[in-house]
Amino acid sequence: MSEAVTPRSQDYSAWYLEVIQRAKLVDYGPVKGTMVIRPYGYALWEQLRDQLDRRFKETGHENAYFPMFIPYSFLQKEAEHVEGFSPELALVTHAGGKQLEEPLVVRPTSETIINHMYSLWIKSYRDLPVLINQWANVVRWELRTRPFLRTSEFLWQEGHTAHATPEEAHEETVKMLQVYADVAINEAAMPVIPGRKSNIEKFAGAVQSYTIEAMMGDRKALQSGTSHNLGQNFARAFETRFQNEKGELEYVWQTSWGMSTRMVGGIIMTHGDDKGLVMPPRLAPVQVVIVPIWNKEEDKPSVREKVLQVEKMLRDAGVRVKSDLSEQETAGWKFNEWEMRGVPLRIEIGPKDVQKDAVVFARRDVPGKEGKQFGIPTAEVAPTALQWLVDIQAALLKRATEFRDDNIIDVSSHNQFREVVESGKWARCWWAGSDADERGLKEETGATLRCIPLDQPGGAGRCFLTDAEAKEIALFAKAY
Amino acid sequence: MSEAVTPRSQDYSAWYLEVIQRAKLVDYGPVKGTMVIRPYGYALWEQLRDQLDRRFKETGHENAYFPMFIPYSFLQKEAEHVEGFSPELALVTHAGGKQLEEPLVVRPTSETIINHMYSLWIKSYRDLPVLINQWANVVRWELRTRPFLRTSEFLWQEGHTAHATPEEAHEETVKMLQVYADVAINEAAMPVIPGRKSNIEKFAGAVQSYTIEAMMGDRKALQSGTSHNLGQNFARAFETRFQNEKGELEYVWQTSWGMSTRMVGGIIMTHGDDKGLVMPPRLAPVQVVIVPIWNKEEDKPSVREKVLQVEKMLRDAGVRVKSDLSEQETAGWKFNEWEMRGVPLRIEIGPKDVQKDAVVFARRDVPGKEGKQFGIPTAEVAPTALQWLVDIQAALLKRATEFRDDNIIDVSSHNQFREVVESGKWARCWWAGSDADERGLKEETGATLRCIPLDQPGGAGRCFLTDAEAKEIALFAKAY
Repeated sequence: MSEAVTPRSQDYSAWYLEVIQRAKLVDYGPVKGTMVIRPYGYALWEQLRDQLDRRFKETGHENAYFPMFIPYSFLQKEAEHVEGFSPELALVTHAGGKQLEEPLVVRPTSETIINHMYSLWIKSYRDLPVLINQWANVVRWELRTRPFLRTSEFLWQEGHTAHATPEEAHEETVKMLQVYADVAINEAAMPVIPGRKSNIEKFAGAVQSYTIEAMMGDRKALQSGTSHNLGQNFARAFETRFQNEKGELEYVWQTSWGMSTRMVGGIIMTHGDDKGLVMPPRLAPVQVVIVPIWNKEEDKPSVREKVLQVEKMLRDAGVRVKSDLSEQETAGWKFNEWEMRGVPLRIEIGPKDVQKDAVVFARRDVPGKEGKQFGIPTAEVAPTALQWLVDIQAALLKRATEFRDDNIIDVSSHNQFREVVESGKWARCWWAGSDADERGLKEETGATLRCIPLDQPGGAGRCFLTDAEAKEIALFAKAY
Repeated sequence: MSEAVTPRSQDYSAWYLEVIQRAKLVDYGPVKGTMVIRPYGYALWEQLRDQLDRRFKETGHENAYFPMFIPYSFLQKEAEHVEGFSPELALVTHAGGKQLEEPLVVRPTSETIINHMYSLWIKSYRDLPVLINQWANVVRWELRTRPFLRTSEFLWQEGHTAHATPEEAHEETVKMLQVYADVAINEAAMPVIPGRKSNIEKFAGAVQSYTIEAMMGDRKALQSGTSHNLGQNFARAFETRFQNEKGELEYVWQTSWGMSTRMVGGIIMTHGDDKGLVMPPRLAPVQVVIVPIWNKEEDKPSVREKVLQVEKMLRDAGVRVKSDLSEQETAGWKFNEWEMRGVPLRIEIGPKDVQKDAVVFARRDVPGKEGKQFGIPTAEVAPTALQWLVDIQAALLKRATEFRDDNIIDVSSHNQFREVVESGKWARCWWAGSDADERGLKEETGATLRCIPLDQPGGAGRCFLTDAEAKEIALFAKAY
């Protein structure tokens, strides 16, 4: 049965939890806080993964794989790192029928074990840069979990690079942030804002963290990818050194950067509507669904033949297409089902369409008649579908960008800040506060400093809180 | 420095361990029994993975991802399964700063957790078949480990399917075995023998296990991929049932099948020689390496230009090509290095080649002058290289097949069996022995029943051990 989901406008959280299960993206695992990524959800992740992986390789990175079990002592070598991650660690204490001498940490991230290996591999400036990425599962034992957004185990990629100079490390950090922004904006149609994290919000062990911040449909922020300049912090902890051109030993300069299955949640919460998911065409596991409309038994053979003909034309044109030829469900049921699952473009084919040698197109993102076009000649199906997919992708990005811009408010006083945050919107403001000021705002309003955008107006202004001169604007919001 | 590796003919085990490290395929992880898969090794795994993944999708399977942590009680539900895997389990006992109420097993394989989910998802015959594959890391705490062949953590894929009838499950089991054989033979150039496992050697929890068995360069057998018919064993343990067309509740019929990073070890040990690795062209991360030969400074610009021109021609033709333009090493050093790393085809370009607008080809698998061809015109480089890669692939398979056939000996007496096994070869024999007989032979000779080949001569013979009438021949060998 395809019952309607709770409308997004009525209860956002219920909508999210219902739609991801109903669309068979995900299910709950038997252990609290874990998720099962079902084929439809995994196919979305595969599309995202392939887009990232291609860009990583184009920018000179190679994939590798490091062990998941890390000696506990490794984490203790970098003080901020162990402090940040200790509360979330899962520990293996027994293996092969025996208690282990030292407990093993199931990786929450791999800076420590990778530095251990880099310290063995890197000898000379000729070995640099090292540009490695890993696709892996990681474990962070969280108290409050939500599928895709925060789960005790999740899938991600983590890039780990080592460089001869701080300038190179900085350049790499920003370059990979831009790769994330490119994928988010141009593949996922998520108009993210790239920026720098504040001191409080940075990664445990980093010198500087960068982020892409996205606005979800309920206007909460989602940190969707991060890129860290690690400086020499881990290199010092692990003695990762190289001989420079002058023959001197130096610590390497490092970066790390990651994007995870959290992005799947981000895509859903950016584009979904009351009817369910809306997949951005470039990442949609199914870009086009073909639904036959047959009331009489005698119509079935000719309609089915037409469906398969159109399916082949689309597949040959490189479109990810599916025909729903099942006979147990009505066409109306199928429309609802595939709308709920977010397929960007539906093609309907009935006996009259067969006669006219034409088909009907319906856009997922434009409901009702407005999004429909009748009488598209069969011969034009493939080029028209390709164009519609481009149009839908652009329309989703445009809509999300307008929504984002409508919900970011320039703020110049503490009172106004409170009001804006209270209303669920983002506050953009000149900022020169201290770490304590930032913590105070979080306690008072629940809003955190999401980022100091890379794109700055320039000049200076007055900090809305302290009235001190501020050189940068910052974005504050409640976040997932 | 590119020092020579221990020759394979001198000490096979030392050769293997040296060459995989020297070629930067792998390194030892900090925790005993773990490995780091380095970029060159991971790139080989990616090629293999893509070939498998494409075939899984072509045969109707979808990828998904299930949690790595399995409640200990799940394993206990299937008696043989827990007995088989208990000695190798790694247990998470603490997480998020607390002791867990029930220890969690880090998956050694996922039949149990997947059945738990299938029991929730499968209701009716309309939900069948379920054809799911997972790419994942698994953990089996082994006492004696060796990179790629047996490590406490490894990467693999595990297919898990559920069907309405035992016939379908059997068909799926054999179909996926054939997919493995296809990939091994036609991509990895490993002439594996597909067959059935004996009762003793089957997977813990299976009704019947199938395997592809490969002969390594030292003539030991390597189980390179397995496909299991699980019958209803796990379905009964987890109450995985469906309503059939008559409205009756039935347990589903299941299969599982897996191939792992062990195959990387298999490829190395099948084709490698005294100089190092020999990569089969279809899976080689680098299929062609171009080495410039420049003695005088003035030759460098024109040689470099030619190298880059040829590189582009090959890349445009879809060849995975690398130019080694580093100036720190001599051409001779580079020859040795890329031979050691197993690149199937080397192209040499010097100043005279530039003048003649031609290049030199050298095959990795045919040493010395015999494998070289001079004066290949630049315009013909791409088609010639593609043809050589095909030829090299075929030559590797032919050589491995001849080696295999030379080392499988038909055996008709217990004495002869002992001699053949003692000499390191495989014994092929009519077999009608009991489980106890099979165990006796293992204790006596170290040989195990590798498989009962699918390809049987037909008819009947006398069991070499018991003299009873035997309907099948079996293969026995020492194995990794």
